[in-house]
Amino acid sequence: MIGRYSPARIQAIADTNEMSFTAPSREQNFVLKHIANVGALAEHDRFAGASEDMVEAIVEGIGQFAAGEFAPINRTGDTVGAKWNNGAVTMPEGFQEAYHQFVEGGWASIDGPEDFGGQGLPYSLSALILETCGAANFAFTLCPMLSFGAVEAIHAHGSDEQKATYLSKMISGEWTGTMNLTEPQAGSDVGALRSTAEPITEGEHAGKYKIKGQKIYITFGEHDLTDNIIHLVLARTPGAPEGTRGISLFIVPKYHLDAEGNSAAPNDVTCVSIEHKLGIHASPTCVMAYGEKDECIGEMIGGEFGGMKAMFTMMNNARINVGSQGVQIAERATQQAIQYATDRVQSARAGSGIKDPVAIIEHPDVRRMILRSKALTQAARALLYYATSHVDGGTLGIEGAKSRAEILTPLIKGYGTDIGNEVASIGVQVHGGMGFVEETGAAQHFRDARIAPIYEGTNGIQAADLVGRKLGLDGGDAMMALIADIKSEAKDEDALMTLALMVEDIAKWMAGGDASIDDRLAGSYPFMTMLATATCGMLMKKQQRIAEAELGEGNDPFLKAKLVTTRYYLDHLVPEAIGLKAAAMGGADILYRLGSEELVA
Amino acid sequence: MIGRYSPARIQAIADTNEMSFTAPSREQNFVLKHIANVGALAEHDRFAGASEDMVEAIVEGIGQFAAGEFAPINRTGDTVGAKWNNGAVTMPEGFQEAYHQFVEGGWASIDGPEDFGGQGLPYSLSALILETCGAANFAFTLCPMLSFGAVEAIHAHGSDEQKATYLSKMISGEWTGTMNLTEPQAGSDVGALRSTAEPITEGEHAGKYKIKGQKIYITFGEHDLTDNIIHLVLARTPGAPEGTRGISLFIVPKYHLDAEGNSAAPNDVTCVSIEHKLGIHASPTCVMAYGEKDECIGEMIGGEFGGMKAMFTMMNNARINVGSQGVQIAERATQQAIQYATDRVQSARAGSGIKDPVAIIEHPDVRRMILRSKALTQAARALLYYATSHVDGGTLGIEGAKSRAEILTPLIKGYGTDIGNEVASIGVQVHGGMGFVEETGAAQHFRDARIAPIYEGTNGIQAADLVGRKLGLDGGDAMMALIADIKSEAKDEDALMTLALMVEDIAKWMAGGDASIDDRLAGSYPFMTMLATATCGMLMKKQQRIAEAELGEGNDPFLKAKLVTTRYYLDHLVPEAIGLKAAAMGGADILYRLGSEELVA
Repeated sequence: MIGRYSPARIQAIADTNEMSFTAPSREQNFVLKHIANVGALAEHDRFAGASEDMVEAIVEGIGQFAAGEFAPINRTGDTVGAKWNNGAVTMPEGFQEAYHQFVEGGWASIDGPEDFGGQGLPYSLSALILETCGAANFAFTLCPMLSFGAVEAIHAHGSDEQKATYLSKMISGEWTGTMNLTEPQAGSDVGALRSTAEPITEGEHAGKYKIKGQKIYITFGEHDLTDNIIHLVLARTPGAPEGTRGISLFIVPKYHLDAEGNSAAPNDVTCVSIEHKLGIHASPTCVMAYGEKDECIGEMIGGEFGGMKAMFTMMNNARINVGSQGVQIAERATQQAIQYATDRVQSARAGSGIKDPVAIIEHPDVRRMILRSKALTQAARALLYYATSHVDGGTLGIEGAKSRAEILTPLIKGYGTDIGNEVASIGVQVHGGMGFVEETGAAQHFRDARIAPIYEGTNGIQAADLVGRKLGLDGGDAMMALIADIKSEAKDEDALMTLALMVEDIAKWMAGGDASIDDRLAGSYPFMTMLATATCGMLMKKQQRIAEAELGEGNDPFLKAKLVTTRYYLDHLVPEAIGLKAAAMGGADILYRLGSEELVA
Repeated sequence: MIGRYSPARIQAIADTNEMSFTAPSREQNFVLKHIANVGALAEHDRFAGASEDMVEAIVEGIGQFAAGEFAPINRTGDTVGAKWNNGAVTMPEGFQEAYHQFVEGGWASIDGPEDFGGQGLPYSLSALILETCGAANFAFTLCPMLSFGAVEAIHAHGSDEQKATYLSKMISGEWTGTMNLTEPQAGSDVGALRSTAEPITEGEHAGKYKIKGQKIYITFGEHDLTDNIIHLVLARTPGAPEGTRGISLFIVPKYHLDAEGNSAAPNDVTCVSIEHKLGIHASPTCVMAYGEKDECIGEMIGGEFGGMKAMFTMMNNARINVGSQGVQIAERATQQAIQYATDRVQSARAGSGIKDPVAIIEHPDVRRMILRSKALTQAARALLYYATSHVDGGTLGIEGAKSRAEILTPLIKGYGTDIGNEVASIGVQVHGGMGFVEETGAAQHFRDARIAPIYEGTNGIQAADLVGRKLGLDGGDAMMALIADIKSEAKDEDALMTLALMVEDIAKWMAGGDASIDDRLAGSYPFMTMLATATCGMLMKKQQRIAEAELGEGNDPFLKAKLVTTRYYLDHLVPEAIGLKAAAMGGADILYRLGSEELVA
């Protein structure tokens, strides 16, 4: 790093960082094995394909693919970005090729149903694909992420004919899918949407619907990667009840299909514009207009007023996948920070008596930042895999798995994306002044990360979901079962036990009669952070036990590092969460002591 | 907010936000009076000008100026930015006019010495100018901020001739000043700088020096606002000792001066390029080349090897001024978030039984975000004014004031900029998806804020300074005196007392023989946050007492709000800092259990 400061030098640093993304395969295998328990999943016929060899091959393969194909175009994606012109969206150079490699490698179809060309593997492995690709290229990976959700909805709610028509091409990745929910007046409040669907009673489209309305924030709503895009659009049929009860879901392809099921004439679907955003520039965020010429044709899926049910099918995994984005950006930012801190030589080590400057990773506070980043990233990854494994357990009908997954969903979405932002910010800080200069790429991670706490239900909404529906799941037993598991793992860990007992107290207080709805909501966010930290603490402690046993008298650097990161999490991060108790139980009174107009003052 | 989503609509929102910045004059007056104690300062002859009327007039005046002149060009500053072309830097439209208004209003000269046209008022008031202007236009205000520092250095260390030559025009704002410290290999490690200064023994410049070297990260190193720029440049004379001991400071004007002291022929000073940065686009961050043609003339200031001493003169106030930037961006982001949350209608209030959607500020978790933002902003402002008042106290020779200011400096720089980032991020979150869209301006604050924890000594360096030099100041008495003051205010406040006692324990442990240098540094950052929070807690408690007394049976909305924000800080923020104790006292062992190469794994 010592040398003249020039654009070429900065570019060299940027290039080095770009090329040097390495998928954390050893870590992923370890967590898949011990936290996601993929071995146990593979004992069931449904997931028999997920043998240990197969899982390791997938981890290795996607790691190489992501580092080789997705990582090198991450910077271009940011600096050039997706471009809108007259309704068309052009992806930056290299994205078409990379996408086709993704499809050819079969990475799009991991957990797709086998009837339609999918590989029928556990969701935990498709989540692994997204995690690895997203760490390499956060923005681009939104494309398959949204597509996976659309496949899920069509598979769960489509008619046999709809499945036959759309699924094979979507699962292979030949077509992508989108989800169209938000409207200007209907963001977090989905029930406020106004798009309409008018039944067509005669002509070639009889039985279908005319769709009309404008949708915003549609991720990859338009692009040039595939020859069709299958939009799933929420709208209201005539006379539908107000609110969420009156919403239905429609399949609206960008191009109509011909008799052979291939893309043919254009549908009346327009990408009106794309947003100018803080980050994820390679992910076109589209304003979509349906039926501007009154000729937009869609078909209903999941029955009239079945829209919200279909939405929820997608939403659960989508929320976990966004939580994964926190892990993704944290992994990428941490790798880049470690590399910079190892290369950058500055100042002698305080108190060492040696005057030569050292790599900044030798300085205690830089090391603290690195260790904190690693511990947070690994903790969130463990939480992610823990959540996905319970989704898979739910698919297998394992008792309690579905409820556990439902509790873990807001935790990984909320906490995962929060730590993603924190770690990306630490990454900038480790770079010092260079972190604020765009060319080094640290700033891109910081910008990209910022969307994750917002979309797919803001983190505030996750917290509300946690203290609302999730707290009362199975009459409250689901929450108490999780807390019991944490307490059982916490023995000998004072801080973790203290946190677990606090979380239990708060949960009981919130579920009991003393806390009003406002009180619960007022404390929801700190409670979410506390419960997520306690759950991560449990998972880190478990990994520590296993790593200790596997290490024995050996010297395996991965296992040695695991002992340190887990210890750091238990001793530094867990106590921080204890400090949130006062806010979690503080009640709503302080929030409403002033009227809204007085808050402005 | 309900309506069609269109570029025009977004622009309208952006415009509204832009125009609606209001300086928090009432709050500033309250804190100036009760925390900065400007009344007491005015009792001294030195600051007799700072009468209550004068102070209120300044608060009012700068508030109107900043809102009227600086705020409206904040967005342009970001979107257009400063432009470099062939060595020249052009500021965006409106900046020249606004700068001239700033100079004409006399805002540049508040605390400048009266001998050179300054108003001789306390530093607390010049800090107020920067705070108010910076809240309106964060990036632009860096220009006067750096200039104030250069004035300070020349006034403290310049010869009579140098003062006569430069000060009047710099104090009026006719010229600006810069500080040139960083080189590619010398960032945090100033002693590693390599720029040279060769004495000139004959000819018209005899007695002066030929300066040679490249400097980076020079804020407003080049611009088109004034007809000269006075650079202060650190360099080494021939045979100078290595490290910081061998550094001298030089005055290097962009243009030589003629016999009348006006700008004449160009000096050999070139702005080679400006950085492409995450934020503060209206602040040109310059790479400066001195002596590329071997004709750069500078004059020494403060004697040979007096460079670091002069640097430190500027650095202390500069660090407080950067801490102020945290307050600035927090104020601006909070105002914008409140406005958005008041306008944006979404979802019915949970549990209210009323189905109509409400402004989102009515929802508990949004209100939590707003109240948290307000409490953090006010706490950091109190800490800022508390620090500046002790600088003024030091100027007056009041016992203990200088040491107190020295302890408070890393606290306001570190904590102030950290909460600036947090509040700017909350501001984005309150906006939901709109926060990630650049046009609303919330993202600009988030990007702008990110530099403050980095420059003028990274926050990690502030923490090191705190547990290094500051902990041992006056044999440790200075630290214990601050903690004693906190404890004395903390009576009846359990959380604050707990935190104060913890801070005392940690300080004693760190200062004692049991903690190694590494242990101290390992815990330095959490200790800094804890001590800053405890100090803010004390200041918030004090404000609460005063507001309670002033309010009496009355209904003054400002005082009522003050009771709520101070209570929120004491009950929610103070307990969070308690959670940092484990990290502060965790020691360095965990950080060094792995070698650097193992951290990479």
